[in-house]
Amino acid sequence: MYDVAIIGGGPAGLSAALNLKIRNKSFILLGGTEKVTGLMKAPQIDNYLGFMEISGTDMLEAFKKHVEQMDIEIKHEKVQNILSMGDYFGINAGTNIYETKTIILATGHGKAKYMPGEKEYLGKGVGYCATCDGPLYRNKPIAMISENQEGEEEANYLSELCSEVYYLPMYEGDYKLNDKVKLMKEKPVSIEGNEIKANLLKTSQNELKVDAIFIIRDVIPIGQLIEGLDIEEGSIKIDRNMAASIPGVFACGDNTGKPYQIAKAVGDGSTAALSAAKFIDLQHMK
Amino acid sequence: MYDVAIIGGGPAGLSAALNLKIRNKSFILLGGTEKVTGLMKAPQIDNYLGFMEISGTDMLEAFKKHVEQMDIEIKHEKVQNILSMGDYFGINAGTNIYETKTIILATGHGKAKYMPGEKEYLGKGVGYCATCDGPLYRNKPIAMISENQEGEEEANYLSELCSEVYYLPMYEGDYKLNDKVKLMKEKPVSIEGNEIKANLLKTSQNELKVDAIFIIRDVIPIGQLIEGLDIEEGSIKIDRNMAASIPGVFACGDNTGKPYQIAKAVGDGSTAALSAAKFIDLQHMK
Repeated sequence: MYDVAIIGGGPAGLSAALNLKIRNKSFILLGGTEKVTGLMKAPQIDNYLGFMEISGTDMLEAFKKHVEQMDIEIKHEKVQNILSMGDYFGINAGTNIYETKTIILATGHGKAKYMPGEKEYLGKGVGYCATCDGPLYRNKPIAMISENQEGEEEANYLSELCSEVYYLPMYEGDYKLNDKVKLMKEKPVSIEGNEIKANLLKTSQNELKVDAIFIIRDVIPIGQLIEGLDIEEGSIKIDRNMAASIPGVFACGDNTGKPYQIAKAVGDGSTAALSAAKFIDLQHMK
Repeated sequence: MYDVAIIGGGPAGLSAALNLKIRNKSFILLGGTEKVTGLMKAPQIDNYLGFMEISGTDMLEAFKKHVEQMDIEIKHEKVQNILSMGDYFGINAGTNIYETKTIILATGHGKAKYMPGEKEYLGKGVGYCATCDGPLYRNKPIAMISENQEGEEEANYLSELCSEVYYLPMYEGDYKLNDKVKLMKEKPVSIEGNEIKANLLKTSQNELKVDAIFIIRDVIPIGQLIEGLDIEEGSIKIDRNMAASIPGVFACGDNTGKPYQIAKAVGDGSTAALSAAKFIDLQHMK
């Protein structure tokens, strides 16, 4: 059981980690599986106090060096969902499950948009984790829409179980798929179904009759990650201490709204960490 | 007429300045006259992302170097008070007066406590600026309570005008006072007076009959700096965009409340600057 789980390894998450380390709290830093962050795409950053004319890549290097020097490990695992268990949380990171007293969401600016039908059929034929839900669809046809290469491995895995696996990549690349997976370079349009569950994926060219549709995104829509979280204008609703609407859940950085700035993310991360630490200390006193 | 005046040259104020520079706004950065900031007293700071095992002095150096490289000048003037003039603000910095469309208060954690009688008689025999109000007390006895060496020069100046100058230093040092100033190492207890104005300073050992009491503080109580600013639990009340209760006034850093952290100050400063820039842009569109 960790004191804190930090979800996200960008500036907000790293800043939170530093502060928890100094405050001597036990924590896990789940930095996701993606190698590319928004920060790395910035050619030059001048407005993070103390660093002048630095590239996004170099800044990220400096940030990572700092956390490494403080013996903080970044686990490259992607959180599928978070369950509130009353006085603690369970984190499903695919193959690993973690338990934690508090959560710091530092997931960045989630640009994910839902597909038509996606929300309606979520958990009813629509899922985000093939590893988790795949076994339910043994000998059934499924489709997978993937924003990144991660989906390839998942599709290959499902091809061992399912009767048919359609793979719709939302990216260009050298797709490493086995022969059982059907690569379909088509634009997914909508998910449809009956009153009980989804059974059809409409694409730009086809109608795929399937029992399940898996969607692998760079960013899981934040409202999907943890149920019951108040969202305001697309951002996590927080108070001055970065506490979200669920007790024990804190948020920091771009997922809390504009401005999307490194300085704000770092500041938010620091505040979220101190608030989480305080929350834990108060629980101990009960 | 400046777009923005930043009051305070700590991490929050410097971060605000960077962002205004990049946004191409005209601004003035009033960094105060004190050479010592809270930051400089920190022996080691580990939790500002990107800097590892750095002293407060070195961090401040890095910060100042950054703003210097961006051609930002820090004016070492102390703001006495700010007047709202409707659609702009007037800043009284002692000898200089500045006009600005917006204000960013980055004044730090004001620890100033009022003396008994101080608030009651403010402007009625109690003042914070000897240079401004001194001429009113020609040939009258006055007392000066000072938290720092700045008061010495002010007391020497007043000794040319006033019949009697009592100097009560709240610090240890090598007091550079001329012969006309009476050094009194006594603790001020309360300011008293009649219905019209203050006329007495009670100290631990004496009752000084005076026409004015000047108080020179490291930090002017924030509520005194600008009238009508909403204060909540000792901190400036702000919204998510760092806007204070007066339109065109923004605040950032320690004066907005806990946690008192560099990362938060820098993040706040960035947000306040972007909000001020947006405020100005919207005004132009009117």
